[in-house]
Amino acid sequence: MEDLIAALPDGRVLTDPDVTESYARDRTFVPPGRPLGVVLAESRDEVVTTMRWATEHRVPVVPRGAGTGLAGGATATDGCLILSLARMTRIRELSPQDEIAVAEPGVITADLDRAAREHGLMYAPDPSSYEVSTIGGNLATNAGGLRCVKYGVTRDSTLGLEVVLADGRIINTGRRTVKGVTGYDLTGLFVGSEGTLGVITAATLRLRRAPAELATVAAEFTSLRDAASAVSAIIAAGCNPSLLELMDRTTLEAIDEWKNIGLEPGTRAMLIAQSEGSADQMAKLCEAASFVAVSSSPEEADELIGLRRLAYQAKERLGQCLVEDVCVPRSVLPDMISTIEDVAARHGVKIATVAHAGDGNTHPVFIFERGLAEPPPEVWAAADEVFRAALALGGTLTGEHGVGVIKRRWLGLETGPVVTEIHQGIKQVFDPLNILNPGKAI
Amino acid sequence: MEDLIAALPDGRVLTDPDVTESYARDRTFVPPGRPLGVVLAESRDEVVTTMRWATEHRVPVVPRGAGTGLAGGATATDGCLILSLARMTRIRELSPQDEIAVAEPGVITADLDRAAREHGLMYAPDPSSYEVSTIGGNLATNAGGLRCVKYGVTRDSTLGLEVVLADGRIINTGRRTVKGVTGYDLTGLFVGSEGTLGVITAATLRLRRAPAELATVAAEFTSLRDAASAVSAIIAAGCNPSLLELMDRTTLEAIDEWKNIGLEPGTRAMLIAQSEGSADQMAKLCEAASFVAVSSSPEEADELIGLRRLAYQAKERLGQCLVEDVCVPRSVLPDMISTIEDVAARHGVKIATVAHAGDGNTHPVFIFERGLAEPPPEVWAAADEVFRAALALGGTLTGEHGVGVIKRRWLGLETGPVVTEIHQGIKQVFDPLNILNPGKAI
Ligand SMILES: Cc1cc2nc3c(=O)[nH]c(=O)nc-3n(C[C@H](O)[C@H](O)[C@H](O)COP(=O)(O)OP(=O)(O)OC[C@H]3O[C@@H](n4cnc5c(N)ncnc54)[C@H](O)[C@@H]3O)c2cc1C
Ligand SMILES: Cc1cc2nc3c(=O)[nH]c(=O)nc-3n(C[C@H](O)[C@H](O)[C@H](O)COP(=O)(O)OP(=O)(O)OC[C@H]3O[C@@H](n4cnc5c(N)ncnc54)[C@H](O)[C@@H]3O)c2cc1C
Repeated sequence: MEDLIAALPDGRVLTDPDVTESYARDRTFVPPGRPLGVVLAESRDEVVTTMRWATEHRVPVVPRGAGTGLAGGATATDGCLILSLARMTRIRELSPQDEIAVAEPGVITADLDRAAREHGLMYAPDPSSYEVSTIGGNLATNAGGLRCVKYGVTRDSTLGLEVVLADGRIINTGRRTVKGVTGYDLTGLFVGSEGTLGVITAATLRLRRAPAELATVAAEFTSLRDAASAVSAIIAAGCNPSLLELMDRTTLEAIDEWKNIGLEPGTRAMLIAQSEGSADQMAKLCEAASFVAVSSSPEEADELIGLRRLAYQAKERLGQCLVEDVCVPRSVLPDMISTIEDVAARHGVKIATVAHAGDGNTHPVFIFERGLAEPPPEVWAAADEVFRAALALGGTLTGEHGVGVIKRRWLGLETGPVVTEIHQGIKQVFDPLNILNPGKAI
Repeated sequence: MEDLIAALPDGRVLTDPDVTESYARDRTFVPPGRPLGVVLAESRDEVVTTMRWATEHRVPVVPRGAGTGLAGGATATDGCLILSLARMTRIRELSPQDEIAVAEPGVITADLDRAAREHGLMYAPDPSSYEVSTIGGNLATNAGGLRCVKYGVTRDSTLGLEVVLADGRIINTGRRTVKGVTGYDLTGLFVGSEGTLGVITAATLRLRRAPAELATVAAEFTSLRDAASAVSAIIAAGCNPSLLELMDRTTLEAIDEWKNIGLEPGTRAMLIAQSEGSADQMAKLCEAASFVAVSSSPEEADELIGLRRLAYQAKERLGQCLVEDVCVPRSVLPDMISTIEDVAARHGVKIATVAHAGDGNTHPVFIFERGLAEPPPEVWAAADEVFRAALALGGTLTGEHGVGVIKRRWLGLETGPVVTEIHQGIKQVFDPLNILNPGKAI
């Protein structure tokens, strides 16, 4: 470690265990190992220095953004070096003409969005965590978000990357243009690779026109399945919502207890939808709803969506959370939702569900007792059933949070042995010594 | 070859050189080698049989769709086997609810679009060649098209793939859901890989709502640069066109000679633009135009766009064509266009330019004498300058046609040595014996 401390400017390397501990985990229960230290990199060159050192000394490196991940991807392993990119917060360029920005990995997602708004543009991908998560973490997990139903996930906004490889070499992938086919799509490969192929030190991102006016619908249902059916109907009717979020009763109760939203006793689910122009058609398609309100007031809309963004924190007040992330074809969302309700009942497990419903992406949050080191067996059994049901419905294990360490056990069910072999082969090409985030994602 | 003929149903293997010759080239001048034979595969299992045989006998395989490629990607090499997917024309599934289709590689692009239209949907990527090109070829080149300015390129419509690897193993990548992050993005890696990583035998493709009504603008300019500036203005104003195509005088003359469109003497360029709803704002932004017509008649629109789709055939009447494909950030399109005009004048080369202008994607078509085996030195010198100018403007060598064999010479200028090494490494993972399309793309 002395070599590394000497090679970097003062104050970049932390080794005091009391301090490094706070960088050792993400937002999961996954028990962290003991890191050797933490590097707080402030530039690409410092990342290069760090990776050269790590390769020379064969030290595993765990890249880290804000640590808001929900899969254990940024969790420390024993003897690793944590490489925090959180201080690389420069927006190197913002071109309104070309509708692109070049951002460093530590830029907070919402900050980039705000910078774009000054030019009538927006950075579309907006995970619920966007006031805290970083662009680097979003890229490494291919984060989704509320607006993704209309504008796509992080990959859809990524044109090019600057990446430091495990051995410290720098590459640039992709381009500044909206399209291009020179060589293999390495940009797409890095996006979603959870820090296992390279350290992202800058990204050329696509911005989009911010919509002028949005109309918002809030609808309450006496059955969760009815709400899910309304989602399918809205998609099938081609309403093109720019947001379509679902919350179940358990979630609403958690929010109500905390923020007192005046939840009615009969309400089993709430749907929040937005679209450009009018939202009347969406409101009409909430036929089974017991209460529907349409509003074009931005304040009311912000309030509703603000509540949705609080869902996770509200649930954390109830206990420890295993936040799951299955995604199914949109037509079978009602089946997925019913299965989750059924699994919860059969296993006697508390599950609170929110969904980026317009994408078929459901977050059943399994709530378990505080103090336990990991979810109890009945929670894993219930989660296992949910995963298998998602796959059986033609879905996927993870819509946006990534595999991390939590979902590696199930990975083979979705990918199969040949793809597993290819994953390993690709990892070898980029990182033959297995320096970068070993034991994660693949 | 006897083994292969015996292993496949009757009539699948062609070996008569007079017959195989017609499968040996694409739409470029690239001189083909002599293939061993052609397999006309009708099913995935026949592809598996073919690839197993090829691996066993170390025979290079050139996958082939319709052979409309403009980069030499499907051109035969000496002693190769050509594997035509053109007979695999089944649309295995079309789900209006989930807005997806599962198509085999031989499906003609426009046929898939027509099948989708029956349900109010469309398959968005529409290369000018879409009445003849195949889905497999589109995927392998990551084809763009006229509508891509709004809906993105082929990759943006691809959710998952079924692929036969060089050794005959089958993998499935991606998913049926609109998003997902399980494992590395192999789907994205195969798209645009020009047949060098695997043979695509089916694709799960995203369909989109077909727009209800489109308004069309046609504008004539007395200077090409003015037309390009109008494009930048339209993009910068956020008009969100669903089509934005540019043709220069040489192109218009070629079309006029063939179809007699009544081209005015002063017209140096024409812009065709479409958008949903009204096109008035776009028309207004064509300030420098000498003539502007706005129409909401679908017939007139189809006629105009039909002419644009004929541009390439019209030019082929003038001589042999080297069709180029540079793409630059949209704000510098006028500079790219001026450079092309300047290069043409300085080298005394005939260049006819069309552009998917809304994407910054320009096709300068270098026209040279019929009968020559390859473009004369002044054409290569002019093309070289155009490529370097595109890169200097922050652009890319190829927006949509791919690298094939034609652009391999310049590839390193854009990618650099480390990326080249990674490309080779990835190729090794999928195809260690270099069976699939050797000498192409990377
Ligand atoms: C309240 C809450 C709500 C959330 N809502 C959403 C949501 O709506 N959608 C969604 O997708 N996610 C959501 N998440 C999960 C999380 O916020 C995202 O996964 C986010 O992208 C992680 O960003 P981060 O900066 O915190 O990354 P971290 O957690 O620090 O790291 C995540 C992964 O990225 C890697 N990594 C980080 N930076 C880099 C880099 N520069 N180069 C290479 N690898 C890197 C890490 O090694 C790790 O594997 C939510 C989380 C919380 C706590
Ligand atoms: C008049 C004209 C207009 C054109 N306009 C456009 C345009 O607007 N936009 C655009 O992008 N292109 C355009 N092109 C180029 C061409 O049509 C596209 O590149 C198209 O995608 C090629 O499809 P194809 O079926 O003809 O493929 P081919 O030419 O047969 O093959 C192209 C490449 O794909 C590989 N390949 C084919 N099938 C498979 C498979 N199943 N699995 C793996 N690899 C495979 C081949 O090996 C080759 O490398 C145009 C061409 C012409 C002649």
